[in-house]
Amino acid sequence: MHKDETVHHYQFASDNYAGICPEALEAMAAANTGFACSYGDDPWTARACTLLRDFFETDCEVFFVFNGTAANSLALASLCNSYHSIVCHETSHVETDECGAVEFFSNGTKVLLVPGDNGKVDLDAVEHTVRRRTDIHYPKPKALSIAQATEVGTLYSVDELKEVGARAKHLSLKLHVDGARFANAVAALGVPPKELTWKAGVDVLCFGGTKNGMAVGEAVIFFNRELATEFDYRCKQAGQLASKMRFLAAPWIGMLESGAWLTRAAHANDCAARLEAGLRQVNGVRIMFPRQANSVFAEIPPPILAGLRDRGWHFYTFIGSGGARFMCSWETSESDVDALLTAVREVAATVGP
Amino acid sequence: MHKDETVHHYQFASDNYAGICPEALEAMAAANTGFACSYGDDPWTARACTLLRDFFETDCEVFFVFNGTAANSLALASLCNSYHSIVCHETSHVETDECGAVEFFSNGTKVLLVPGDNGKVDLDAVEHTVRRRTDIHYPKPKALSIAQATEVGTLYSVDELKEVGARAKHLSLKLHVDGARFANAVAALGVPPKELTWKAGVDVLCFGGTKNGMAVGEAVIFFNRELATEFDYRCKQAGQLASKMRFLAAPWIGMLESGAWLTRAAHANDCAARLEAGLRQVNGVRIMFPRQANSVFAEIPPPILAGLRDRGWHFYTFIGSGGARFMCSWETSESDVDALLTAVREVAATVGP
Amino acid sequence: MHKDETVHHYQFASDNYAGICPEALEAMAAANTGFACSYGDDPWTARACTLLRDFFETDCEVFFVFNGTAANSLALASLCNSYHSIVCHETSHVETDECGAVEFFSNGTKVLLVPGDNGKVDLDAVEHTVRRRTDIHYPKPKALSIAQATEVGTLYSVDELKEVGARAKHLSLKLHVDGARFANAVAALGVPPKELTWKAGVDVLCFGGTKNGMAVGEAVIFFNRELATEFDYRCKQAGQLASKMRFLAAPWIGMLESGAWLTRAAHANDCAARLEAGLRQVNGVRIMFPRQANSVFAEIPPPILAGLRDRGWHFYTFIGSGGARFMCSWETSESDVDALLTAVREVAATVGP
Amino acid sequence: MHKDETVHHYQFASDNYAGICPEALEAMAAANTGFACSYGDDPWTARACTLLRDFFETDCEVFFVFNGTAANSLALASLCNSYHSIVCHETSHVETDECGAVEFFSNGTKVLLVPGDNGKVDLDAVEHTVRRRTDIHYPKPKALSIAQATEVGTLYSVDELKEVGARAKHLSLKLHVDGARFANAVAALGVPPKELTWKAGVDVLCFGGTKNGMAVGEAVIFFNRELATEFDYRCKQAGQLASKMRFLAAPWIGMLESGAWLTRAAHANDCAARLEAGLRQVNGVRIMFPRQANSVFAEIPPPILAGLRDRGWHFYTFIGSGGARFMCSWETSESDVDALLTAVREVAATVGP
Repeated sequence: MHKDETVHHYQFASDNYAGICPEALEAMAAANTGFACSYGDDPWTARACTLLRDFFETDCEVFFVFNGTAANSLALASLCNSYHSIVCHETSHVETDECGAVEFFSNGTKVLLVPGDNGKVDLDAVEHTVRRRTDIHYPKPKALSIAQATEVGTLYSVDELKEVGARAKHLSLKLHVDGARFANAVAALGVPPKELTWKAGVDVLCFGGTKNGMAVGEAVIFFNRELATEFDYRCKQAGQLASKMRFLAAPWIGMLESGAWLTRAAHANDCAARLEAGLRQVNGVRIMFPRQANSVFAEIPPPILAGLRDRGWHFYTFIGSGGARFMCSWETSESDVDALLTAVREVAATVGP
Repeated sequence: MHKDETVHHYQFASDNYAGICPEALEAMAAANTGFACSYGDDPWTARACTLLRDFFETDCEVFFVFNGTAANSLALASLCNSYHSIVCHETSHVETDECGAVEFFSNGTKVLLVPGDNGKVDLDAVEHTVRRRTDIHYPKPKALSIAQATEVGTLYSVDELKEVGARAKHLSLKLHVDGARFANAVAALGVPPKELTWKAGVDVLCFGGTKNGMAVGEAVIFFNRELATEFDYRCKQAGQLASKMRFLAAPWIGMLESGAWLTRAAHANDCAARLEAGLRQVNGVRIMFPRQANSVFAEIPPPILAGLRDRGWHFYTFIGSGGARFMCSWETSESDVDALLTAVREVAATVGP
Repeated sequence: MHKDETVHHYQFASDNYAGICPEALEAMAAANTGFACSYGDDPWTARACTLLRDFFETDCEVFFVFNGTAANSLALASLCNSYHSIVCHETSHVETDECGAVEFFSNGTKVLLVPGDNGKVDLDAVEHTVRRRTDIHYPKPKALSIAQATEVGTLYSVDELKEVGARAKHLSLKLHVDGARFANAVAALGVPPKELTWKAGVDVLCFGGTKNGMAVGEAVIFFNRELATEFDYRCKQAGQLASKMRFLAAPWIGMLESGAWLTRAAHANDCAARLEAGLRQVNGVRIMFPRQANSVFAEIPPPILAGLRDRGWHFYTFIGSGGARFMCSWETSESDVDALLTAVREVAATVGP
Repeated sequence: MHKDETVHHYQFASDNYAGICPEALEAMAAANTGFACSYGDDPWTARACTLLRDFFETDCEVFFVFNGTAANSLALASLCNSYHSIVCHETSHVETDECGAVEFFSNGTKVLLVPGDNGKVDLDAVEHTVRRRTDIHYPKPKALSIAQATEVGTLYSVDELKEVGARAKHLSLKLHVDGARFANAVAALGVPPKELTWKAGVDVLCFGGTKNGMAVGEAVIFFNRELATEFDYRCKQAGQLASKMRFLAAPWIGMLESGAWLTRAAHANDCAARLEAGLRQVNGVRIMFPRQANSVFAEIPPPILAGLRDRGWHFYTFIGSGGARFMCSWETSESDVDALLTAVREVAATVGP
């Protein structure tokens, strides 16, 4: 199925190259105490739900699914019928990196794209997309999907988010947040999670566990409880109901009770800040988007990028720009960052101006 | 989302009430060594694939997905178009317990049911179902799906399986095996896995990891490699591609290298045998199907069943029969079995003849 | 694509072997008067809707689609989500003759079968199907689908229908009626259409135009108007929105204004009655179901059936019984019936007792 | 369902505002001669298929479906799996006007957009779209869909089409042509239909009957016969198999045998040419795209457009441009065109420069 590749100790391709953080792994092991009811009727699932309700300071509905593709697609499918459409940013993950999963889970819901600076939706473009046509040949816009942090590592401020929420409401759009890196956003913005969710009008959040340090698993959080009706059936039919649910739920207990969700995310953000600061010192390098969470997008002369790849560094090319994405994770160390910066400087020196 | 329930130390409801067996958990922890490429381009995934190819003694295609519902549904969707149909036993899991997942993943493939003794498909009924109509108002049968072990805990012998394979070929049906408890079947039949798969004409097997002792994860094994074309895309779109794939793959390494896949399954089978033997001694209890793997289906007077439930024992009622299903797992101990038997006897004594 | 076959002047295979009745064809031609707005914004569509509302004596929502498969499937898809299920009779057309269309349009809604005498659902079996399980592995029953007339040509009386409606309501099931031969039912029962629909609790009716005498087209009638929300979008996306809608709508005007819907259906029923009476006189022939609408199901000795086929008569074999279905249409004449009866008698005489 | 609107005798909104042309209606009536086998096993369907094979001078597979949305969506679904993608022009009908039908019929196939002058795909952009990514998070491009005539009324020349076909083959893309106005294209280009289809590498063509003058119906023509495998099942399941198929097939006989397919299309093209010539004389009017088939796209000062609307003229606004689309049909007369031109001139005079 897959070609063998050696393990790369130092790399910045994605935060899903990182392993399981100790708090998550220990919680899994701690849940491994004999028999437990399956499919979520176990005390760990109950406890994790309670902790998430405390976390958001509201009585939200909580579901645990296996990965982000499923979390986003199922959440959006619960907001839309097949003949509806979802408005999102043209760089959004649901558009560019899920191989048509949204369309598959919803049986055809169309994704309509809007531009916007720094990976954030332009609200006038959203409004235009909703208002420009009302005929039945045009799939009726029903949901607005944004990401926090965005695909280019930026953040919606609380005020921006409130504006998004208000406009969504004004346009009768349900508001979905792809929070694969929601912990990084909270850590960076330093506000209570409720400020970034239901208080701003978010209907459903896909809260990422994997990139925060877990082995597998995301939480789908419905602040609008009505929208969660029969979501358990939806998960079951779509192959997203874990039989040994406790092992999906327990890591959330570990992360939330220990505070690791925050410290691990803050650490990743700090690494990115350190990397950004270092890159800014390198001639010919340009930071492409405000660095706000755990990634740095930089335009770097192609010969330097080639040189880094030759030395075994991993990072993504940013589609269409010739730039590079460096992603930091809970497992990235300051010395990893420094090693990368050293490599950049060395390669740059070789390549010349 | 879920109501809290206390943990039940002794129970027989399902093998998915069991935890993670040590060999699987240790292998997960052992894979947690820093960065690794995601989505399967890591050495653990490669190693697990190699081990599974060795296991089946053939160059099969191997994919790891999150659970059995997805494994079966995706495998069947790769065999059929939406206007085809799948023939399976009327008690099969894909029909009775997956909430329409097969129809969902395949966008409408119909499931056609056949009877058969002891949970095994009657091949003449299969042939009748395929041959009885050839008009386009009838979804064209394209796949035969059986389970090994079956939903009622019985096994297809090697000879029976060859007959199934030959008939499927004769009818131009692809052959799918739901192997949620495939390890138990191999342990019970004592033959090399190849005898129960490709040598008998099986095209694709869903090999269950969860019930064998893992936290999460099943392997989809294509012996007919052509059918695996683009199956990775299918998994991705359907939300079944793990980003940190190594943690789905590593447990297979642990189970296969240690031989735990066999010893754990054999132990569960032995517990079921012990339970069967004990139940046969109880007046008024009738074993419903040949006990061949890790479950016992018994017709037990309803007052006894009620008494057992009152004492906190968990087991499933077998739909439509008034009987009971007792499932043993890797974690079931002999003393658990004996405690259940004691309880049965005590309750039976109270209830009277 | 299709093999050429000569036209059969006398046959009883299906009422869709008949042509277009004059009232429908003339109405189509009458609507062909220059330009008209497309997609239903034309006066013929408006008029047809009004006539259907008058017909049912209620302010129902009306949509015109191309055929019965689409009408039933779209109507059911509007009642259910993919993880729900539909309960219907085991001989129902949506189960046996639509090649998985219900599952396709709804993206996986499962069809659950119940038995029942004379092609009518046994309400206790319906209740059992709804009540027997409430776990999320079982697709939640959400709709009851019946046919009027049924697949075996019988009718639900007004009282039976009220009982069906009451039970559906009691079980929180929406009630769908496949009315491919609804006109025949109304003609036979001699009651106002409202008595067979909304007054009995029917939520949505698929009212067949094709078998009543039109070239193409069925009307989907929502008595429960809420369920019709955005049904126009659903039709559009599913390829069921006619651009030149007036030609789907106009035949309804022709049929309803002239009363042909009734006289044509009554004529077909009368032919079936004549055929039934004649067949009852033939030795060895047994009428299988009460003949109530426009078809006769009869058990006839296989040599006689073979002899009829040899003489070029068309009829369907009734699956699993060795019987035969004779269907009369608006275009069947008394002399067609008599010719068939003569042929039966002649063949029977040849074959001997 | 729909609001009543009066009939507009003179309008240019769409060619589907036209009625049925005499050759099509007479052929329908001529097919109405008593009983005929249903679902396509009738002599008219056979004859229409033969005529279409003669028309294209090749042994193509032919299917008749109800409308263009279904024709395009089913054809594309037969080329792709759900995790594939379809490349088409950003103004294409399948993207902008089918309410997600492509995604619905294929259960999620994503539509990827490319730009291109005059509504024709830029082949380098197509190549870039196919080549830019090969990872499984990106739905694998499998088909190229173009329209002939295009959404903006332009035509691919034979040479351009050959280039498209060659590039598609080079990129392993199947080539689909949306031919809602294919007859207009053939009439305008004056070449045999084979030159615009299989000789240029077209795999499947959706040949529009409705806009050519029929009441309802499109032909799906597979030049690549392998791709047509089981397409009849696909049509059936998707509610696109007409029971009284002869009435969908007969109009093709009428149009092809009489040559009306060509004369009617050529007339519509001529009307558009006349309109274009007239509009070019009006101050402030700019023709937006080369007028090649039966439509004229013109940028016209908004006050003039408003004035035309006030006088009851119908035409579409061209999205995003402030321009107007005037569509001519078989039923448009020269005097309709002249009346519109007079109105434009009069309004323009009132409005002033």
